[in-house]
Amino acid sequence: MARTVLKFGGTSVADLDRIAHVADIIAYRAGQGEKLAVIVSAMSGETNKLVGLARGAAGDAINGDHFDDEYDVVVSSGEQVTSGLLALSLRKRGLNARSWLGWQMAMKTREGHGSARIDGFEDSGLADAVDGGEIAVIAGFQGVTEAGRVATLGRGGSDTTAVAVAAALNAVQCDIYTDVDGVYTTDPRIVPQAQRLEKISYEEMLEMASLGAKVLQTRSVELAMNHRVPLRVLSSFTALGEDNPGTWVCSEEEIVEKQVVNGITYSRDEAKITIYGMADRPGTSARLFALMGREGVNVDMIVQANARGEGRANMVFTCTTADSAKAETVLTAQRTEIGFEKMDVARDVAKVSIIGVGMKSHTGVAETMFDALYQKNINIDVISTSEIKISVLIDADYTELAVRALHTAFDLDAQ
Amino acid sequence: MARTVLKFGGTSVADLDRIAHVADIIAYRAGQGEKLAVIVSAMSGETNKLVGLARGAAGDAINGDHFDDEYDVVVSSGEQVTSGLLALSLRKRGLNARSWLGWQMAMKTREGHGSARIDGFEDSGLADAVDGGEIAVIAGFQGVTEAGRVATLGRGGSDTTAVAVAAALNAVQCDIYTDVDGVYTTDPRIVPQAQRLEKISYEEMLEMASLGAKVLQTRSVELAMNHRVPLRVLSSFTALGEDNPGTWVCSEEEIVEKQVVNGITYSRDEAKITIYGMADRPGTSARLFALMGREGVNVDMIVQANARGEGRANMVFTCTTADSAKAETVLTAQRTEIGFEKMDVARDVAKVSIIGVGMKSHTGVAETMFDALYQKNINIDVISTSEIKISVLIDADYTELAVRALHTAFDLDAQ
Repeated sequence: MARTVLKFGGTSVADLDRIAHVADIIAYRAGQGEKLAVIVSAMSGETNKLVGLARGAAGDAINGDHFDDEYDVVVSSGEQVTSGLLALSLRKRGLNARSWLGWQMAMKTREGHGSARIDGFEDSGLADAVDGGEIAVIAGFQGVTEAGRVATLGRGGSDTTAVAVAAALNAVQCDIYTDVDGVYTTDPRIVPQAQRLEKISYEEMLEMASLGAKVLQTRSVELAMNHRVPLRVLSSFTALGEDNPGTWVCSEEEIVEKQVVNGITYSRDEAKITIYGMADRPGTSARLFALMGREGVNVDMIVQANARGEGRANMVFTCTTADSAKAETVLTAQRTEIGFEKMDVARDVAKVSIIGVGMKSHTGVAETMFDALYQKNINIDVISTSEIKISVLIDADYTELAVRALHTAFDLDAQ
Repeated sequence: MARTVLKFGGTSVADLDRIAHVADIIAYRAGQGEKLAVIVSAMSGETNKLVGLARGAAGDAINGDHFDDEYDVVVSSGEQVTSGLLALSLRKRGLNARSWLGWQMAMKTREGHGSARIDGFEDSGLADAVDGGEIAVIAGFQGVTEAGRVATLGRGGSDTTAVAVAAALNAVQCDIYTDVDGVYTTDPRIVPQAQRLEKISYEEMLEMASLGAKVLQTRSVELAMNHRVPLRVLSSFTALGEDNPGTWVCSEEEIVEKQVVNGITYSRDEAKITIYGMADRPGTSARLFALMGREGVNVDMIVQANARGEGRANMVFTCTTADSAKAETVLTAQRTEIGFEKMDVARDVAKVSIIGVGMKSHTGVAETMFDALYQKNINIDVISTSEIKISVLIDADYTELAVRALHTAFDLDAQ
């Protein structure tokens, strides 16, 4: 029988009742003969509590992006607790189960703490245990460094653990159980006609994830794409036996009927920075964005336009609202060095995007998009595109209107 | 500079403020040039919370004394959190500190889970780190089995961890910081004139600990005695710089002025079981106590008296109230097999003891004790003695009166 990896997030293991339901799901699947490795997150709220304690103890020693090895010792305890509890709950049901902590399954990490990257697995007997019929209950989010210290993978790291374990075990699939029943064409809170997608390609899911759909962590989708691990997003909140097909995230080739557009995403966490009267000579932009990079400002959309035909240009770029304060401070300080006249920061903007692998082979997609927005009198500020995505920056007040208009324009509304 | 081991219990690390105070104490001592290994318990309340979760998840799978490997995975996370938090708090003060979990310092255990015994330490670099000036912050209560699983030492196991680490590091002393400022001649809640002892022998401390004084776990005192580790009990609640001598627990030879009696202890967790009309022939008692042993009933005091000079005897023994129900059930069921007429269980009894190494060389101690109780009209039910202890079983209503009378009779009242 093939090996299968299951992953349960924080809301799925929020308390003992939910852990018991998860144990029932696992018992059912084990009863079907599946050889299971199960990755668990911390009970919801626990990681925040532990982060609060760690920050409280360290005070100024933990600042911004600076996390360290001891922070990881503290926060990784949340997944440890869940793995032990789920193993106990499975044994209560007469199943052969045991917990595996990061150091026990020897998931080696590199590049520091708090946002470590997975290097690989040392032989720990995990695969043999799974093949022998033992349900491996793995604490997500944590690994161990070469020096034998605990390291965590950063927020959402349990998704990444699940995919890494699935790849290492050559699992036939990796089921991500969560509190929604799949990936939707857009946010159902904004568009009630939003539909659950049956399948979506890795590339589309990556764009969805990085553009604000919070179902899967970006790194886990990248890893699944690289190792060709079929992912499925499904609900841990449906009753046993109830229909629960979820959404498959797989290679484009496995999707026979490709939609032109599969999803509409939006993000209000956007700021638009306009630099006026920048010296229009080689190297100026490079200097500007090198500075942003050094300050850790993640620049997204960029537009440059010649302003007045007199050796001066205007430059527009976007970043997250959190980064925009940093950008503003450093740009103001370096105005003379970079060479520009004035700047302006707007935070009342939103980014709305359409995503679909079908765009690669269809024309007229941008036209449909822009026309739908024009029909609603929505002004487009900045445009950026990739092979499978078109994003526009608009006035934040128009976000919901734009999402609904595009959802209808691309025939995504449920009947 | 010599190595020193410090241990901080649950109330000493109850919250971030208390952890900060502990960090201040450690910083002060490190500033004196001491090479420190620090053992920490879980924040007070955490272990109970985790035990509750584990029992909730396992349901009937955890019953009575049956604990297992996954229970240990869950409950050991409490000490992990504290060790990380204290390391962070020390680093905040500019000190070189790191946490050590059970598996990292390779504290090997045997004899199962939940109440594992320490087998020894594998080389982990701990001693080198301490000698190099790093403050080792060690998660107490936890070790690792030969199979690489987490194992806990049972309640109070952090004391035992501290002494084991002190022995392994050849530390000059092991300071047990707690919420009292030392070991007292008796319970100050009953006798306001109770005095802090300056020194007490391991043997006396063992009797104190096993008789109900909850300052130190019995196993840790045994271990300290076997490895001749000088222990000190002192308060983590005094301000820095304030007088805080604590109580030394050391070998008898290091105590120059030996008191005849050093402490008065009491325990209300006692039950007296009287077996009437037992067949007075060889093997009957052996069969009775073998049965108690099999049932896990820890028998304490035993008295046998010939009852009627007709081949029948009465037998009296004591055990904890918790064990007495088990004893009652099994004895009732086996009445015919053991051969006795009837039985009686009294739970309104208390044990009061006097403890002192000086008894070995002084006479008249028992006389003084019995006379003091007689003067207060307290009836003695059962008596048991060891080389450094005399215990009496009395009516529980007289407990405080007896303790006060004995405290005065042996000149222990503070002036």
